[in-house]
Amino acid sequence: MSKTGTDKKWDHRSVDTAERLAAAARFIGPGKEVKAADTVALLEAVIRAGDRVNIEGNNQKQADFLAECLNKVDKSKIHDLHMVQSAVPLPVHLDLFENGIAKKLDFAFGGPQAGRVAKFIKEGKLELGAIHTYLELFGRYFLDLTPRVSLICAYKADRQGNLYTGFNTEDTPTIVEATKFRQGIVIAQVNEIVDTLPRVDIPADWVDVVIESPQPFFLEPLFTRDPALVTDSQILLGMLCLKGIYAEYGVQRINHGIGFLTSAIELMLPTYGEELGLKGKVCTHMILNPHPTMIPAIESGWVDTIHCFGGELGMEEYVAARPDIFFVGPDGTLRSNRAFAQTAGHYALDMFIGGTLQIDKFGNSSTATANRVAGFGGAPNMGCDSKGRRHSTASWLKCGAEQPTLDRQLGTMPRGKRLVVQGVETFGEGRAPVFVDKLDAWELAENAGLDLPPVMIYGDDLTHVVTEEGIAYLNRCPDIDSRMAAIRAVAGYTELGLQAKPSETRALRDAGIVKTPEDLGVDRSRANRSMLAARNIRDLVSWSGGLYNPPARFRNW
Amino acid sequence: MSKTGTDKKWDHRSVDTAERLAAAARFIGPGKEVKAADTVALLEAVIRAGDRVNIEGNNQKQADFLAECLNKVDKSKIHDLHMVQSAVPLPVHLDLFENGIAKKLDFAFGGPQAGRVAKFIKEGKLELGAIHTYLELFGRYFLDLTPRVSLICAYKADRQGNLYTGFNTEDTPTIVEATKFRQGIVIAQVNEIVDTLPRVDIPADWVDVVIESPQPFFLEPLFTRDPALVTDSQILLGMLCLKGIYAEYGVQRINHGIGFLTSAIELMLPTYGEELGLKGKVCTHMILNPHPTMIPAIESGWVDTIHCFGGELGMEEYVAARPDIFFVGPDGTLRSNRAFAQTAGHYALDMFIGGTLQIDKFGNSSTATANRVAGFGGAPNMGCDSKGRRHSTASWLKCGAEQPTLDRQLGTMPRGKRLVVQGVETFGEGRAPVFVDKLDAWELAENAGLDLPPVMIYGDDLTHVVTEEGIAYLNRCPDIDSRMAAIRAVAGYTELGLQAKPSETRALRDAGIVKTPEDLGVDRSRANRSMLAARNIRDLVSWSGGLYNPPARFRNW
Repeated sequence: MSKTGTDKKWDHRSVDTAERLAAAARFIGPGKEVKAADTVALLEAVIRAGDRVNIEGNNQKQADFLAECLNKVDKSKIHDLHMVQSAVPLPVHLDLFENGIAKKLDFAFGGPQAGRVAKFIKEGKLELGAIHTYLELFGRYFLDLTPRVSLICAYKADRQGNLYTGFNTEDTPTIVEATKFRQGIVIAQVNEIVDTLPRVDIPADWVDVVIESPQPFFLEPLFTRDPALVTDSQILLGMLCLKGIYAEYGVQRINHGIGFLTSAIELMLPTYGEELGLKGKVCTHMILNPHPTMIPAIESGWVDTIHCFGGELGMEEYVAARPDIFFVGPDGTLRSNRAFAQTAGHYALDMFIGGTLQIDKFGNSSTATANRVAGFGGAPNMGCDSKGRRHSTASWLKCGAEQPTLDRQLGTMPRGKRLVVQGVETFGEGRAPVFVDKLDAWELAENAGLDLPPVMIYGDDLTHVVTEEGIAYLNRCPDIDSRMAAIRAVAGYTELGLQAKPSETRALRDAGIVKTPEDLGVDRSRANRSMLAARNIRDLVSWSGGLYNPPARFRNW
Repeated sequence: MSKTGTDKKWDHRSVDTAERLAAAARFIGPGKEVKAADTVALLEAVIRAGDRVNIEGNNQKQADFLAECLNKVDKSKIHDLHMVQSAVPLPVHLDLFENGIAKKLDFAFGGPQAGRVAKFIKEGKLELGAIHTYLELFGRYFLDLTPRVSLICAYKADRQGNLYTGFNTEDTPTIVEATKFRQGIVIAQVNEIVDTLPRVDIPADWVDVVIESPQPFFLEPLFTRDPALVTDSQILLGMLCLKGIYAEYGVQRINHGIGFLTSAIELMLPTYGEELGLKGKVCTHMILNPHPTMIPAIESGWVDTIHCFGGELGMEEYVAARPDIFFVGPDGTLRSNRAFAQTAGHYALDMFIGGTLQIDKFGNSSTATANRVAGFGGAPNMGCDSKGRRHSTASWLKCGAEQPTLDRQLGTMPRGKRLVVQGVETFGEGRAPVFVDKLDAWELAENAGLDLPPVMIYGDDLTHVVTEEGIAYLNRCPDIDSRMAAIRAVAGYTELGLQAKPSETRALRDAGIVKTPEDLGVDRSRANRSMLAARNIRDLVSWSGGLYNPPARFRNW
């Protein structure tokens, strides 16, 4: 029965890691420190061709120095890397493919590099693994996409190699845990090496190398929306949402997307929301980055709790001064954490509301276009019905109970459903119709050789569509034909909208499946900027009592 | 516009925490150490009536000393606590309600206390918040169920208060992060305070108090199944699964439940699995506790990766000697982490397979009975279709493509689906029929005042049912009537099974929706214990080369 005692080795990974670190030992000083000038040589010592490599680069904090250095390695030795990382927003991320160093990509968000990703796929420079939602990619880090080497970033390290990730902790703990405990190698760029950290976020045991980078890591204010740019049309949509959805369902636990519609809603909580008597009844618990446009609602006492995916430039002092609302460490600094925020986003939210570029006639939506592999970040994770959820809230029960289709799925068994709302003007950017017969995602799938069209939110997860024409309560539709008719009814003058039959729309309105602004008692004439609690960035600063410190590009005074 | 400058305070939580810790200061020595004898007094100083309190107590590692001490506090001062915790398996967890110290419970798993939970609800001693799946509860820790005080456990602390959670890290990092960064209080019981930790798992900054407990924390071998107890019937089911599902779909990324069926499957990988040519094609990536019954498959080279929710008593040395397979720290010890394992379980698995006590005629299933509030642990999270998933694998695409119902949900848009398999003998424990007209969960909901019957896996998430009669491929059913017929067809001599019409079953077999062992070419006569690669615990020890060290109760030699 003795099946072992063979010569099989079970420690290839740790032996290999030890060999790599031994080869790099001459660069590594006390406290695991490597000089910035030695970074390229270090990477050449610890990375092998074909390795799975993670560069911390979500949509805000970027391990940009390490990414630049990776572009400079000898590609005759290091090539065919498989990059697994949240996002590829920096040119250097795609340069790796241009330069023949990286070959394959698994990611969640492309941002400004989305066009290059598509182009490189076509040219055969980049093999696409898959597009994920963040939490999904994190899950795979612990199963079949574990990084061999991770290049991460932190604000500070101490002399032992402990890291402080502070306000923008974001993805760091997840990447480090997956890498280090599968015997991989963790290399951190930090802005500064100090004697004592404000707090320890990552224990030194989990880090192999610390490099003080020549300049602070790149950080983008991705969640700042200037109230001055909110349009009357967005305000109308916001009023429809507040009256027809927030009030109708009493939704307390919410994620807002990063568009101007949800900024408008945030800015109308202390005005129109107050008028509707919603204070304390909606938006009390939020999963959000620290949006500056939330300041008036927070100051007016609407919000109990906000947990954050990441930070937001300029909001550091404000957040530190509002520890009753935000998750803040003993050092007084925000603790953000994308994995836990997305976990709460998936399982603890009653509503996700955001926008999209296209919605097809069935209700499937995507921000992908034919030549841009954009990815969807956290939207699929929060913008779906979390089927594993077992706790109930009033809004979740109501949304579920309204479905006439549930008996065809579960028999007599009841179940709730998350509200997934898309708010769009019928014609979007560049006057392109948002409602389409077929998503451009089909063409992208063709171009990029994907198994499936990249859909951001699937039609059966989408419960409400809001346009300037009104709200389609898709969860109330008895079948897909009715759902398609409800979508057409709010699709305005798009080609799809023009196919709506007045009699059908009338019947949907009578059934409460479609509601126009008039049906909802929302006065279109009031939809103007006087509805906003703050009308520009300066107002937000004022609301914050001077604590909000907007980046220069948002200041015009 | 200056809306602030009011007297509103924004630091109630941190001020309150500081006051509580000041009241406890006389007990807290250097290194945050409190003497075990002072624990009750400490808890009285830092806990207030009505607090939300977490006691680390998942299904294995237990902060049992702290739980005992909490039962001894002065209940005239400390009462109406709201307990939020993964599990309540220990008598002391329920004693808190009996003793009038706790009032409300939000949890995921009841285990042996399930009956008392139900009884206390009826008697008005316990108000049930909700039953969750673990990851869902963790999500709520970061939004609307954040603990004010958490009582956790670790193996060791050092003199600064850093913690070593080692082999059974499990829930600790999640609880601590949610509590400490919302300015709550973290109290750790440790088995030992030492000068130097094998590795730091939790930084001292995140911990307020460390107590060396009088005895090591309680740890249960919950995932050990003795091969000697595997029955021929379970072996038949296992053969059906391997040929009709594992081979049919080529499923690589799997979670196995803790029952004997999945143990049988694990033990047949090197035998029947090998015969079917499945090595390297199925079960390569697993999310599992370190099941001893996985040893033969691991030793035979079937497995690439296992990430663990928690540890398993007796498997310490074996896991340490197999770092190529398991997640192991620089100190050579397993790193388990329930939050990340469940994240991978939700998003990176292609199949969940487990058992249940009851399945209703629609396919909804539950382990709840009329008088036991049991909870479901991780099953709902892994045993559901993860709607946010966007990456594809062959088995996921195949399972999705087989659904004739998808066009009624998504129009022409394709999508994959996770395999969710329930393997049951038609008559289960105590010869009770597993297939029933109506789940006992309805009666429990009535008894416990729940909004919904507690369903473990919903019918629309369940894709396959396996019994000794054969396999029902529910994902291939065109509608709910067909699904109900397919369930009846494999329900054997249960009352539900007796309602199956032979002509209907014949048609389902012709359509490939139901397959009997004969249809699958599985020879029932071969379903006996000679199929098992290990037939008892001693065989497992032998397979492990002596590295597996089973707890005494599993040893009979």
